[in-house]
Amino acid sequence: MDFQLNCPIPINEYPMITMAHGSGGILSHQLIEKMFKPAFNNDLLNSGHDGAVFPQPEGRLAFTTDSFVVQPIFFPGGNIGDLAVNGTVNDLACCGATPEYLSVGMILEEGLPMGDLWKIVLSMKGAADRAGVKIVTGDTKVVDRGSGDKIFINTSGVGRVREGVNIDPRNCKPGDVIILSGTMGDHGVAILSARAGLEFETAIESDSAALNGMVDNILDASRHISVLRDPTRGGVATTLNEISRSADVGMVLEEELIPVSPEVRGACEVLGLDPMYIANEGKLLVILPGSEAETVLDKMKMHPLGQEAGIIGKVVAEHPSVVRMTTSIGSSRIIDMLTGEQLPRIC
Amino acid sequence: MDFQLNCPIPINEYPMITMAHGSGGILSHQLIEKMFKPAFNNDLLNSGHDGAVFPQPEGRLAFTTDSFVVQPIFFPGGNIGDLAVNGTVNDLACCGATPEYLSVGMILEEGLPMGDLWKIVLSMKGAADRAGVKIVTGDTKVVDRGSGDKIFINTSGVGRVREGVNIDPRNCKPGDVIILSGTMGDHGVAILSARAGLEFETAIESDSAALNGMVDNILDASRHISVLRDPTRGGVATTLNEISRSADVGMVLEEELIPVSPEVRGACEVLGLDPMYIANEGKLLVILPGSEAETVLDKMKMHPLGQEAGIIGKVVAEHPSVVRMTTSIGSSRIIDMLTGEQLPRIC
Repeated sequence: MDFQLNCPIPINEYPMITMAHGSGGILSHQLIEKMFKPAFNNDLLNSGHDGAVFPQPEGRLAFTTDSFVVQPIFFPGGNIGDLAVNGTVNDLACCGATPEYLSVGMILEEGLPMGDLWKIVLSMKGAADRAGVKIVTGDTKVVDRGSGDKIFINTSGVGRVREGVNIDPRNCKPGDVIILSGTMGDHGVAILSARAGLEFETAIESDSAALNGMVDNILDASRHISVLRDPTRGGVATTLNEISRSADVGMVLEEELIPVSPEVRGACEVLGLDPMYIANEGKLLVILPGSEAETVLDKMKMHPLGQEAGIIGKVVAEHPSVVRMTTSIGSSRIIDMLTGEQLPRIC
Repeated sequence: MDFQLNCPIPINEYPMITMAHGSGGILSHQLIEKMFKPAFNNDLLNSGHDGAVFPQPEGRLAFTTDSFVVQPIFFPGGNIGDLAVNGTVNDLACCGATPEYLSVGMILEEGLPMGDLWKIVLSMKGAADRAGVKIVTGDTKVVDRGSGDKIFINTSGVGRVREGVNIDPRNCKPGDVIILSGTMGDHGVAILSARAGLEFETAIESDSAALNGMVDNILDASRHISVLRDPTRGGVATTLNEISRSADVGMVLEEELIPVSPEVRGACEVLGLDPMYIANEGKLLVILPGSEAETVLDKMKMHPLGQEAGIIGKVVAEHPSVVRMTTSIGSSRIIDMLTGEQLPRIC
């Protein structure tokens, strides 16, 4: 099947999603049989069950869920479909698990153009293939016009946790260092610029990507990783605050070590935003003993998503549950959790 | 913790959901730490991960997902919360699996009263306890007022498939009989009457319930069950059509054997609806060899949810993929899948 071909449901006949596509009747059946199953094609999905049954993966299992309500649904660097696949793949990878199976729950608004749904389905298929996961079960609901916003997607995932790996925010301890895999804020600024119709000199694209390949490299290099976490909503600042509170440790970041692209930095200055609080969708925080840092950094840099990886700070015994940042002029300030909302519906 | 006590987030201070509750910042954190975690309390959920990690269950795994967009969110006999738990528990049970772990993904509309969210969370907790499942991971998003409809809930679930059990619609074969566990249409008519503000002489309540206990009884009695299925959206008619198409067999139903409560029958006459096409949320279709039917029926009747269970028809080699119904006056007609929408947003 060539996925570049036309939408499998004739658009001239069914130009948009109607309430009947969510009824459980013939049009629901058509959507599943003609669009979803051929796109996500695999034996488990095709069994026609309400759920997927699979052989038991070896080792412990990881299980995670994420709903995606990003607005707009198409943005520079991706769309809600690949974002939804990458997001759940990344949550599994951050549990130290090899992502294996995904579910997809769609809530479609009446009137969603059929062609848009098809584009999203194709992106999900592409993202799943790239990440090496199978979409094995799904569900579709349709809400009346005005009761939703085009499309919301939930993805849940199951993966196998690597033997001997124990990723837990509570493992984080003084002496650990904090690595960030690349620049901050690209996803959030890409969404915001798409939403506001802002034009910057250089287009800012979402960093949406599956991190499991890079996590494999890291776990091949060291079994002593304390924490893996993708800093999504709330950005690096909020994510590190959550971890420091879980482990009751302090953290000290070096402002000049934290990479931000010139385009994102410029956009943030114009918009009055702090990149520390802006969502990323293809970046990884790694916290690990200082003695392992060099080896792991080398492995990260060998991966296309980790070429700009670097140490951005350290874990300390002082000021437990508080994250501080040392600025380039030598002063130090507290980096708190995000309060209120900075960027709604970013993922 | 007494779940009848006041909402754990002070309602006078935070009377409703705001966009900041979905930001990933302090208010998101508060919602999770003060409301969700204490309510769904268990070790796996409390680990503070983005996902849950659990020991490998023995045997094959079942994995399923379902999104709930029912409107209104509170209705006679339940609300969107217990419906969401029961629905996914039932999908797992219908795979022949013992439901073990659930994820909960909430999409909240800005302005949802905090007290309503708390009622829904309590119902989920109660339903999970009754079904014997743990809510181990979750996600919360908030959409701006007008971009959602109060609350949508996705539940995904993982369960362990019983050894030696192989439930598959394609197993269905001539000689099998079709058992229905009780009356048809209660859920759909309850929703419709709540929505329309209709008053019937006797209140019609949703049949929303977890079926895994009754499924345990059935699988204790026989390992030769061809199909288990809960006839939700599209009702008994659509569900049996799906199965007959999967297995490429015919089915013959006896109209007078199919139970419908007098209240539902009356309401359907007034509203011009056919109970065969109306959603159920606590009923089970069992298709199995005729030789096993008596034993299984006895076990079903011993369960509170199966007291009205009975054989409603049989699987035949004739007219493959077509479901026919013999009426009480001896005529026979085709029962097709639902076309178009009968009752939108029923689950």
